[in-house]
Amino acid sequence: AVEKKAELGRAGWTLIHTTAATLPTPLTPAARDGVVALLRAVAQTYPCKECREHFASFIAVHPIDIESRDSILQWTCIAHNAVNARQHKPAYPCGDIKALDARWGDCGC
Amino acid sequence: AVEKKAELGRAGWTLIHTTAATLPTPLTPAARDGVVALLRAVAQTYPCKECREHFASFIAVHPIDIESRDSILQWTCIAHNAVNARQHKPAYPCGDIKALDARWGDCGC
Ligand SMILES: Cc1cc2nc3c(=O)[nH]c(=O)nc-3n(C[C@H](O)[C@H](O)[C@H](O)COP(=O)(O)OP(=O)(O)OC[C@H]3O[C@@H](n4cnc5c(N)ncnc54)[C@H](O)[C@@H]3O)c2cc1C
Ligand SMILES: Cc1cc2nc3c(=O)[nH]c(=O)nc-3n(C[C@H](O)[C@H](O)[C@H](O)COP(=O)(O)OP(=O)(O)OC[C@H]3O[C@@H](n4cnc5c(N)ncnc54)[C@H](O)[C@@H]3O)c2cc1C
Repeated sequence: AVEKKAELGRAGWTLIHTTAATLPTPLTPAARDGVVALLRAVAQTYPCKECREHFASFIAVHPIDIESRDSILQWTCIAHNAVNARQHKPAYPCGDIKALDARWGDCGC
Repeated sequence: AVEKKAELGRAGWTLIHTTAATLPTPLTPAARDGVVALLRAVAQTYPCKECREHFASFIAVHPIDIESRDSILQWTCIAHNAVNARQHKPAYPCGDIKALDARWGDCGC
């Protein structure tokens, strides 16, 4: 059961970070609205109740930074770090766009 | 790159099917609206362009069956089977709610 929760978490972050990393630059209004809708829908529907409530509070306190592709990708990283901190895991270097791109920028598609 | 595309696909389906399988019964309007928003956001933002266009067309031709938790879970199964068919993979038994629940109903959370 613990393994299922972790697997779902990895799936959620894979979809979220890859979606953010592959947004167009310059960002279009449609792409921006789409990713905001995705993040809000995850905050509303993510199967783990404690997780989605944390994520919804995070969005409420730290509005999604929709300035650019980079800022949205960094926002998803900071949101993930908030969970890492609760799990006593190391923080990811969210200031390092190259690291984020190397990890999440290739969707193979 | 092909492996990245498959990994993203598994992540996307894991989030989608687990979200559908863990909807409340009886379904509430908020849960129903949330999952519809999630599916539409995926159709709008999924990183693989060909995939999201196929998925958006699928939704347009086969409206999401929002009757109940079971019907939404089965709808996600049928949508996934449309991709399986394009990939010449076997169809999943979408009529078998017990099989779907055994595969996706436990989020460990
Ligand atoms: C929206 C959401 C909310 C969640 N809330 C909770 C919660 O409240 N409690 C709970 O127990 N679990 C929560 N989870 C699950 C949790 O975050 C992990 O996914 C799960 O514990 C599995 O952890 P992991 O160590 O395998 O790697 P994950 O944390 O899933 O990370 C996967 C990979 O992402 C990369 N990565 C790590 N940190 C970052 C970052 N900051 N930015 C970008 N990439 C990064 C690394 O390469 C890592 O291997 C949540 C998941 C999601 C999607
Ligand atoms: C919305 C979306 C659209 C996609 N569109 C395309 C596309 O157009 N072209 C493309 O090449 N790839 C597409 N993909 C990716 C593709 O569906 C696979 O995820 C990917 O090819 C990896 O396949 P896989 O064999 O590892 O397992 P997946 O097909 O990812 O399946 C993962 C697991 O789900 C279970 N499963 C299988 N079928 C079903 C079902 N019908 N219902 C419920 N559970 C099932 C099985 O246990 C399986 O092991 C899409 C993914 C998503 C999320």
